[in-house]
Amino acid sequence: MHSPGSSVSGYVLLLLVQIVFIIVFGFFTDYSKDLLPKNATVSAAMEEAHEEQPLPKYPHFQDIHVMIFIGFGFLMTFLKRYGFSASGLNLLVAALAIQWAIIMRGCYEMEDGKIPLSLDNLIGADIAAAAVLISMGALLGRTTPMQLLVMAIIEIAIFAANEFLQIELMRIADVGGSITVHAFGAYFGLAVSFMLRPNKENAKTGPMECSSYSSDITAMIGTIFLWIFWPSFNSALVDGAEQERAIINTYLSLAGATVTTFVFSALVAHEKKFDMVHVQNSTLAGGVAVGSICNLLIHPFGAIMVGVIAGVISVLGYRFLTPAMLSSLRISDTCGVNNLHGMPALLSAVFSAIYASLATTETYGNTLTTIFPAMKQNSTLSEEDMHEMVIGGYGRSAAKQGAFQLFAILLTVVIAIVGGLFTGLVLKSPTMRQLEKDEHHKDDAYWETPAESNTTASTNAS
Amino acid sequence: MHSPGSSVSGYVLLLLVQIVFIIVFGFFTDYSKDLLPKNATVSAAMEEAHEEQPLPKYPHFQDIHVMIFIGFGFLMTFLKRYGFSASGLNLLVAALAIQWAIIMRGCYEMEDGKIPLSLDNLIGADIAAAAVLISMGALLGRTTPMQLLVMAIIEIAIFAANEFLQIELMRIADVGGSITVHAFGAYFGLAVSFMLRPNKENAKTGPMECSSYSSDITAMIGTIFLWIFWPSFNSALVDGAEQERAIINTYLSLAGATVTTFVFSALVAHEKKFDMVHVQNSTLAGGVAVGSICNLLIHPFGAIMVGVIAGVISVLGYRFLTPAMLSSLRISDTCGVNNLHGMPALLSAVFSAIYASLATTETYGNTLTTIFPAMKQNSTLSEEDMHEMVIGGYGRSAAKQGAFQLFAILLTVVIAIVGGLFTGLVLKSPTMRQLEKDEHHKDDAYWETPAESNTTASTNAS
Amino acid sequence: MHSPGSSVSGYVLLLLVQIVFIIVFGFFTDYSKDLLPKNATVSAAMEEAHEEQPLPKYPHFQDIHVMIFIGFGFLMTFLKRYGFSASGLNLLVAALAIQWAIIMRGCYEMEDGKIPLSLDNLIGADIAAAAVLISMGALLGRTTPMQLLVMAIIEIAIFAANEFLQIELMRIADVGGSITVHAFGAYFGLAVSFMLRPNKENAKTGPMECSSYSSDITAMIGTIFLWIFWPSFNSALVDGAEQERAIINTYLSLAGATVTTFVFSALVAHEKKFDMVHVQNSTLAGGVAVGSICNLLIHPFGAIMVGVIAGVISVLGYRFLTPAMLSSLRISDTCGVNNLHGMPALLSAVFSAIYASLATTETYGNTLTTIFPAMKQNSTLSEEDMHEMVIGGYGRSAAKQGAFQLFAILLTVVIAIVGGLFTGLVLKSPTMRQLEKDEHHKDDAYWETPAESNTTASTNAS
Repeated sequence: MHSPGSSVSGYVLLLLVQIVFIIVFGFFTDYSKDLLPKNATVSAAMEEAHEEQPLPKYPHFQDIHVMIFIGFGFLMTFLKRYGFSASGLNLLVAALAIQWAIIMRGCYEMEDGKIPLSLDNLIGADIAAAAVLISMGALLGRTTPMQLLVMAIIEIAIFAANEFLQIELMRIADVGGSITVHAFGAYFGLAVSFMLRPNKENAKTGPMECSSYSSDITAMIGTIFLWIFWPSFNSALVDGAEQERAIINTYLSLAGATVTTFVFSALVAHEKKFDMVHVQNSTLAGGVAVGSICNLLIHPFGAIMVGVIAGVISVLGYRFLTPAMLSSLRISDTCGVNNLHGMPALLSAVFSAIYASLATTETYGNTLTTIFPAMKQNSTLSEEDMHEMVIGGYGRSAAKQGAFQLFAILLTVVIAIVGGLFTGLVLKSPTMRQLEKDEHHKDDAYWETPAESNTTASTNAS
Repeated sequence: MHSPGSSVSGYVLLLLVQIVFIIVFGFFTDYSKDLLPKNATVSAAMEEAHEEQPLPKYPHFQDIHVMIFIGFGFLMTFLKRYGFSASGLNLLVAALAIQWAIIMRGCYEMEDGKIPLSLDNLIGADIAAAAVLISMGALLGRTTPMQLLVMAIIEIAIFAANEFLQIELMRIADVGGSITVHAFGAYFGLAVSFMLRPNKENAKTGPMECSSYSSDITAMIGTIFLWIFWPSFNSALVDGAEQERAIINTYLSLAGATVTTFVFSALVAHEKKFDMVHVQNSTLAGGVAVGSICNLLIHPFGAIMVGVIAGVISVLGYRFLTPAMLSSLRISDTCGVNNLHGMPALLSAVFSAIYASLATTETYGNTLTTIFPAMKQNSTLSEEDMHEMVIGGYGRSAAKQGAFQLFAILLTVVIAIVGGLFTGLVLKSPTMRQLEKDEHHKDDAYWETPAESNTTASTNAS
Repeated sequence: MHSPGSSVSGYVLLLLVQIVFIIVFGFFTDYSKDLLPKNATVSAAMEEAHEEQPLPKYPHFQDIHVMIFIGFGFLMTFLKRYGFSASGLNLLVAALAIQWAIIMRGCYEMEDGKIPLSLDNLIGADIAAAAVLISMGALLGRTTPMQLLVMAIIEIAIFAANEFLQIELMRIADVGGSITVHAFGAYFGLAVSFMLRPNKENAKTGPMECSSYSSDITAMIGTIFLWIFWPSFNSALVDGAEQERAIINTYLSLAGATVTTFVFSALVAHEKKFDMVHVQNSTLAGGVAVGSICNLLIHPFGAIMVGVIAGVISVLGYRFLTPAMLSSLRISDTCGVNNLHGMPALLSAVFSAIYASLATTETYGNTLTTIFPAMKQNSTLSEEDMHEMVIGGYGRSAAKQGAFQLFAILLTVVIAIVGGLFTGLVLKSPTMRQLEKDEHHKDDAYWETPAESNTTASTNAS
């Protein structure tokens, strides 16, 4: 039993963080100007026009919201005795992360000293939380709740900086967040996992690190909701034709990944049976792998092909790479985030470089510079463009944009790993309680759990 | 064993009610005029315009629909042996309640002797059903299905009258329904619970009134869907900037409530562990507490603060107040609706009075009288306004509007309690079967339940 | 134990099918013209207009997507030891079916040798997958995964042809797909089931063909999501007033069906208890029964009445007809698709014939020929109309349209049965592995399943 005292101080600290958030929100945020009542001089007609306009992104937002809270939360319930933590800590970590992400991401878009809040900030905050939850997947069952929360605080800060660097400064194309969210979250989490690695005799799968029949089924709730709404995740930040292409491509990529997941799951398994781990995870790899390119002209066959490849890589990763990483590098990866998020995201980045380097005005028309803003020619820059800082400047060639895409994934992975190593150092510090080995993958250390007498049978008989 | 005869008559009665509903719908409802084909003389262009227009509220409606049927239904599956009733009776009660709510609410908006139906009526009916399901939560496991249905019939009638009184006649601000739905449903249910209170020796938690490991996880399905879609619930009845503010404020309030729920859950528990009851319920208190004020200019920090306070009150209520109410007043509250709906709604009402009394044209511009219609000055009333009955008349000052907000919650609670006491009297009448004590919190009295031999193990071995 | 070799060849074949799909998509599909970048000469204003326009059908699509993957998938988890297959094979079969449906349905709408893809194709593909999943319901637990996939391939091809025949050539009204999806899927599946019928001594319910307490609850996840989103399914293909009527009618019909399902479930059961099979399925019959008429002027009371009748028929079907079909014709129907989809769809078709035969310009105004396009008078045909092939030509009377509706359901059922018998013949062919009787309704033959020692109890004790 750990001393309760240390916990109390942890919870008090968490409460203080929440109070600090309120203060920061008070001083540095407000509704965006559109959401504040207009001065009475504004014509009533204009006001009326705004009132009538529905929120076109709201259904997309709610789809993503389901992914973050139900999707990630229930996917992680696959461990037989970690379902309270999976669904509950997912909620806690995300609830903290979204508040903090609004602040951290908002730093880069302040107006008059305030972060202007609108639905867009909520979408951005949910997406940022996804990165943290991916990292949590790598560590699942091997940290205290407090360690996860500390990780969330550090990770969101680095995430927001890297997102700003890649999207605003380097102007890379990554509408589905494969680079900035999936690769970042996966390698950040794996780096933390490396820092928390067990000593040699413990570098094996723990006795509780397995599923039960019913936990495998609740995990499928998470999987399927993620599968269903992934097109919304990938298309939320674009509009019009780009958005519809993103939806179609993601839909097809997921379908392709699903078929190959089942095929390879059976082929690599002994007895040629399907493995629930693959079905729960690798079917989703198609959504990640198409993320950075889903708005491009990859055409339907390209979308399916990307998904098919992602499904194969992901299953092979679960079967061969994850055990090897554990035995050779002692990096545990409870949910296999390297296979679901990491490698498919690398794939997506490579494809994005290829497609970018082949993009021409002939194929993309005048949408070329909407998709790749840094490819605007210097002669066509607007006043607004000129005031924006773009690393390397405008006027990129297609080949150069491709090189930037590759550089972006490289830089993101490096930042994620360095950030994760630093975070791991913090999490191991003597001031933070570590889990004992026999507390791993079990709710009981941090949750009141119901006594499991064989009540069902007995009450049935009564 | 109860006599099957009495049940048959109950079911036949229910069938008759359904047939009466058909007749009432036949005589007193029709599609709203917009949904009926136009006379051929209407210009084709106008028709075209209508055809093209999507249904902007439909995604909001579906989010609420998920809350009512999945959210409430699965949240109530937390009892280890009451899941069939929780998910099934939730469906039955709501299916009856929505039909009846369309009729009862429609009484106040008839045109030419007919209730004109559109999507708005379905949204209103779903919200009315929420009040009944909240009351059901207070009673969960201690009534027969027939008692719940009788309660639904009486409660919807009183709900509709009170809603009309508060919103249309008293013109109070309550867009998220904290006053008219949450406070009403909670205190109605608690009053019924008081009438059905056990004798002194039975005023303790029953042996089946607890969760199992898996029932706690299915309950989280309900919790998280409610958490996700609460911004839709609170913002469904407003538009434009008000709607977007309602979304942002509810999102932030829920996030704040979630963090403090975990903090206080651990602090008040022995061994400093998280309690699933708190996580399943108090995390949602932020949605209730912000309900009546979510469209106001409470600003992001205000939204989080309201949620933080609600989370604390709710956890403390579960820990201290619910047991005290049971032991001293013998009021059972199975789901703790006083802590999730009742007290946070009171909080919301108090805040709404404060914010209303501070509202000025300086801050709200010309949206002031959209939000608080009774604050229209008599000189600016339109022809239409003059024909509407408003208690106390137009031209309210901000302070007076604040007083009305307080009066509204007081009146609602009184109406709910009186209505609940009356309903309880009906439910205990000798013509209605009561549950035996040993039938409490168990599906078996009313459901065919599968035999629980240890088949899984044996088939595994085969 | 079956020989693994045969399986490997099956999986390799599946992989080949997926690769063939990629090739076919490469040669015969592309994004629709709207989704391709415009030639630079197109005015920027026009482009801008398209960019701004949100996707009004996207929320409807996502609701249907939830129905297909969560709804069908979890409804089928009711068997106590078939949940991996229910949720997993539902995903696999649907992922294959949607790709193939895009191709097969696209054959009838090619432009310049390409199928133009937009969101509409995804909606159509999801709806086509529903037919296959309904057939799967009839066979649940009695086929290998490979047999299901072969069935999906054949069924989608026939489905697409029949859909084109009924909707485009015969111009029948069936916006909710009761005829083309529900009746087709149900009778196709039952015909396959007849071909795979057991010998006489095995024509009884298998030992594993039952639910457990927890599987009945996970099945309710499927039921309730289907119930919630059915209005979206029925209204996805229409717009404006027709769409809103479809939503209202489906909502009311489901509510009516739910109440009568509970009433009749108790009345026909011994001990007058509710039966989860009825609650999980017959509550949904209202959605099917209103499918073909939900956009018509059936008025609210008509909608409820249709639901009420469907609920009764469906419960009686489960109680009496399904056991009789098994004992007399040896047709197994694991999920009772005849009661949920088959008979309610026949009812819907009959109602559609009645309503069509009574439709006049007086009641429908100029929407009459939008709803029943073949009732356009020859004198009013546009240039475009004249180029379209309509069986029997334009200028149908109301009575004739009614006759066409009846003919449509007859033809659909015949095509489904013949198609199903043929498919069953293929599935029984010696080249395909059949399940042994003792492998029925169990995941273990095709899934790695966790060992079920009494770990929970023991770890609790530790």
